[in-house]
This record gives sequence, C-alpha cells and structure tokens, in this order.
Amino acid sequence: MNPAVPESTNTSLDEFLPAMRERVETALQSCLKLSDDCPPRLLEGIGYSLLGGGKRLRPVLTLMACEACGGDTSAAMPAACAVEMIHAYSLIHDDLPAMDDDEWRRGKPSNHIAFGEANAILAGDALLTLAFETIAGGIQPPEVAAACCLDLARAAGAEGMVGGQVADLEAEETPVGTVEQLEAIHRRKTGRLLCAALTLGGRVALADSQSLRSLQVYGENVGLAFQIADDLLDVVGTAETMGKGARKDASLGKLTYPSLLGEAESRRRAGALIDQARQALAPFGAKGRHLDALARYVIERDR
Amino acid sequence: MNPAVPESTNTSLDEFLPAMRERVETALQSCLKLSDDCPPRLLEGIGYSLLGGGKRLRPVLTLMACEACGGDTSAAMPAACAVEMIHAYSLIHDDLPAMDDDEWRRGKPSNHIAFGEANAILAGDALLTLAFETIAGGIQPPEVAAACCLDLARAAGAEGMVGGQVADLEAEETPVGTVEQLEAIHRRKTGRLLCAALTLGGRVALADSQSLRSLQVYGENVGLAFQIADDLLDVVGTAETMGKGARKDASLGKLTYPSLLGEAESRRRAGALIDQARQALAPFGAKGRHLDALARYVIERDR
Repeated sequence: MNPAVPESTNTSLDEFLPAMRERVETALQSCLKLSDDCPPRLLEGIGYSLLGGGKRLRPVLTLMACEACGGDTSAAMPAACAVEMIHAYSLIHDDLPAMDDDEWRRGKPSNHIAFGEANAILAGDALLTLAFETIAGGIQPPEVAAACCLDLARAAGAEGMVGGQVADLEAEETPVGTVEQLEAIHRRKTGRLLCAALTLGGRVALADSQSLRSLQVYGENVGLAFQIADDLLDVVGTAETMGKGARKDASLGKLTYPSLLGEAESRRRAGALIDQARQALAPFGAKGRHLDALARYVIERDR
Repeated sequence: MNPAVPESTNTSLDEFLPAMRERVETALQSCLKLSDDCPPRLLEGIGYSLLGGGKRLRPVLTLMACEACGGDTSAAMPAACAVEMIHAYSLIHDDLPAMDDDEWRRGKPSNHIAFGEANAILAGDALLTLAFETIAGGIQPPEVAAACCLDLARAAGAEGMVGGQVADLEAEETPVGTVEQLEAIHRRKTGRLLCAALTLGGRVALADSQSLRSLQVYGENVGLAFQIADDLLDVVGTAETMGKGARKDASLGKLTYPSLLGEAESRRRAGALIDQARQALAPFGAKGRHLDALARYVIERDR
C-alpha cells in the first residue's frame, strides 16, 4: 500500500501473509476432493481438522522457502499442503485421551470429541497417508517428489516428530531437568517438521545443497524460538487468544522454557535464536525478505 | 529337490516361500537400524509388531510380482518392506481399545497391551511414516520411487485401507446385509493394499501398464478370496492355529462370508476367485509360476 515502507518490515508481511494463507486454504480444500471410496464420515473428520483454521505457519514457510530459492510457489503448493496435513494429523493424535487428552483445539471440540476416538485415530492415519499421496502425485519432477517424500518422512517419523512425542510423554513420567533435554525433545517434536517445511520449498525450487543447508539453519533456530514463544504465550496468554485453556502445560507440570529459565531469559534466548535464523538468510538476499519478516513475527505475534 | 515335479505345483512354493520370507525378515530388521534420535522404547514397540511374525504375504507378493515382470527382486525389497510396514501399523491401530479392542495378536499381547496405548498409537504412526521413507530412500530410479509412494498411499489411505476400516466400524453399528456391501468393505480394507503390494513389485521391474493391470486383476481376486478363506478359518479354526480367539468375528456379530452365503457357497466362491486370479497371470508365462502357486495356497492354507 505504501511504497515508502521497506519490504523487509512487518508491514509487508501483514499484506503478504493473509494472501498466502488464503492460497494454502484453497489448495487444502482441493486436496480433499476424494472419491466415493472415502466414507463421508471420514472425509468430514479429516476436513474438520485440516480446514479448521490454524496459523498455516508450516505451509507458508514452504512457499516462502521456495520463493527465497527463486522457485515458483505454485509448484510448491502440494508440498506445503502435505506438511500441513502432517501437522494436522499430529494434533488429532496428540489430543487423544491416551496421549495429551485435550478436549479442545483451536476453540472447538477436539476431533475425537466431535467424531469419536476410532474415527479420530483413522482421520489422523488418513491425513498422514494423504500427505505422501499429495507430494507423490503433485510434485514434479519425480526426483524432487521422491526427495520431498524422504525429507518429510524423516522429519515426521520415529527419528523426528513421532520420536519427539514419545520422548515428551516419557518426560511427563520422568521430568526433564535441563534446557538441553527440553530442546532435544522440541527439536524432534516440532523442529524437524518446520525444517522439512522449508527444505521441501527449497527442493521444489531446485535449490543447491548450500541453500538447503541455510534453510535448515533458519528452520532449526525459528523452530526453537517458536517453541519458547509458545511457552511464553502459555504463561501470559488467555484462553481466549489461545483457543485452549492457558497455563495448561504449566498446570500439568510439563517443563517449559519459562519454568526452567524464567521469562526474561526465555525472551532473550528466543531473540538470539531469531537473530541467528535471520543471519542464515543472507545468501538469499531480497528473495528472503518474507522469511526474514516471518522470523520476527514468530516472537512478536499476539503480544 | 525333485526335478520331476513341475515348478508350478505347491512343492515349488514350499521351497520358495520360506526362503523369500527369510529374505523379507532380514530386510525388515535392517529397516529398523534407526539413529539415537528414535527413543529406545519406540524402536522396541515398532520391532515388536513389525518383526513379530506373520505370513509376510504382502511383501512376498511384491517380490513375486517383480519376478513375474522380469525384474530383480532385490531391487523391490524396500517396496516389499514398506507394504509390510503399512500392514503392521494397521494391525496395531486396529487392535486399539477404541477400534477392535483386541488384546491378542499372533499369539502374544497386542502392541497397546505390551507398550501402552499412547506408545502403540505412536508406533503405528512411525511405521506408516517409515513405509514412505523406505520407498523414497530405497527405490530407484526416482520416477519409480514416486510412483510406488503414490500407489501405496492411495491403497492405504482414505479411499483405501483406512476408508475400509471406517466403513467396517460403521457396519458394526448398522450391519451390512449383502455380499456386495461386505465386498465393498473388504475391497478397500484388505484388497487395495494387496493390489499395491503387487503393482509396486511390477513398477520396480519397469512393467508396462498392461502387466500392471494384470497384477491388479490378480490382486483383486486373490484379495477377496483371501478374505473369504480368513472368514472360513475363523469358523473352523481354533485359537491355537489362529493366534487369537477363533469365532471372534462371529461372536461380535460381524458379518462374514460364511454367515451370508453358508460355508459351501463361500468355498465355491473363493475357488472361483482364485481361478480368475490365475487366469490373469497368463501373460507372465513361467515367470508367474510362484504367483500362481501362491494363489492356490491362499485357499488351501491351514486346512
């Protein structure tokens, strides 16, 4: 709107982010055009969680990473949707009674409350599977599709997100005591998928290994900063802005950055991580401006 | 052993099947060499179900299909393992209390009994993810890897196996009344994955679309025959040979082929399906002899 505002400020993100989110939303909807072989009740359960709002941070990262590497963001859309499907499935399964037992998600009943436990487990399984179908069927050329499937599976599986969730559940029984242990959990539980969101975008843009590495460094730092910011929001947030009971993690006795480091040090650490993330963007020049703005948004949101 | 016995008889299968199963077993073990990022407890839970025995029917089908299309079966092994991982994950999730609530599987406690519900859900998620990692990282060239991921995801997802499981659970509430409805469920719940097991083997052998179609027809018919045979074993079997309580399905009021058609007609139908499956193998000539023997084995096993 105002050409005098440099593109690297949040003003640009304010304009850019809603447009990108809308494109993601439309693409996610079209991913759910399944045949009659999918029972209507299952499709409804999948859509309930996949199209149920959310920040769309991961798919937006995929598109921005593709842009930073000089690629066509439309070509990266199937990868962006796939990453969001993995995220959505993980929330459905995490909310189950046997796991975190959350009855609310994004201000509405969790999937298993709305559709029953069996259907929720299966909706999660279907979303996880659909993620790989979407990449394998939608990303070209096939070398890139195969590389994207590999990145995503490694990030989401036993050595990544699922492993992190197991470690997180174990930590509830034997609480972790150090920031290093907490970081080791978050690196797998949320960090790996954020990194994959970025490298998938880079791969679609046929980025070289140096650029993929830069995206990785950006992702690792943003991922940890994002988690600290989440913990901080949990301390200061309200049920209204978070869509679930605030202080939930704290009340469950889960260790968080603020509880280990205090609020001020947590905030300082998040800021330092974001600085490192932004430095990793240097090779991309102006093409990395949206990633740069997003990094700052991560620690500035809802405050 | 006896060269006078034609290769297309079961004698050949008796020699061939154990060797193929052993190769699959070894390959599955090596798929589980994960890094320290995988929590030991998770790895144990995955191995408990993946390496816990079973007929290995699906991976063997993959190898035999590859062979029928003139390919190198070693090259198809990652695909064979991936199909078995999908099968193993589906058993873990199907056994959960919210689903079929089975406490026993293959003569030992179900995964969630041995490791707890949360870990069982996550072991299933990890296996599902590892299936795609194994194909994307192990199948060459990348075009074939991408095509295999796509086949497998379509077969396993909302329009395939997961959709079939949802339909099956719905049928428990509103029992299906016709063989056509029962077949529609089984076609998705077990048939689609069997077909994918075959087409993956064909794809690795760079089979043409005609051959893939023949494998598909073989798989559809064997899949339904396999289900009828399973239902029949459930009627006549004992807990000892089945590894779970026999008549379990019948006692739960689940509709089965024998309950809809009677035992004699079920047996006749299974035989007719196997005949059709075998006819579909004609284009493969002698290279299809193991698939031919396996088709007959499906309805002759354990009787």
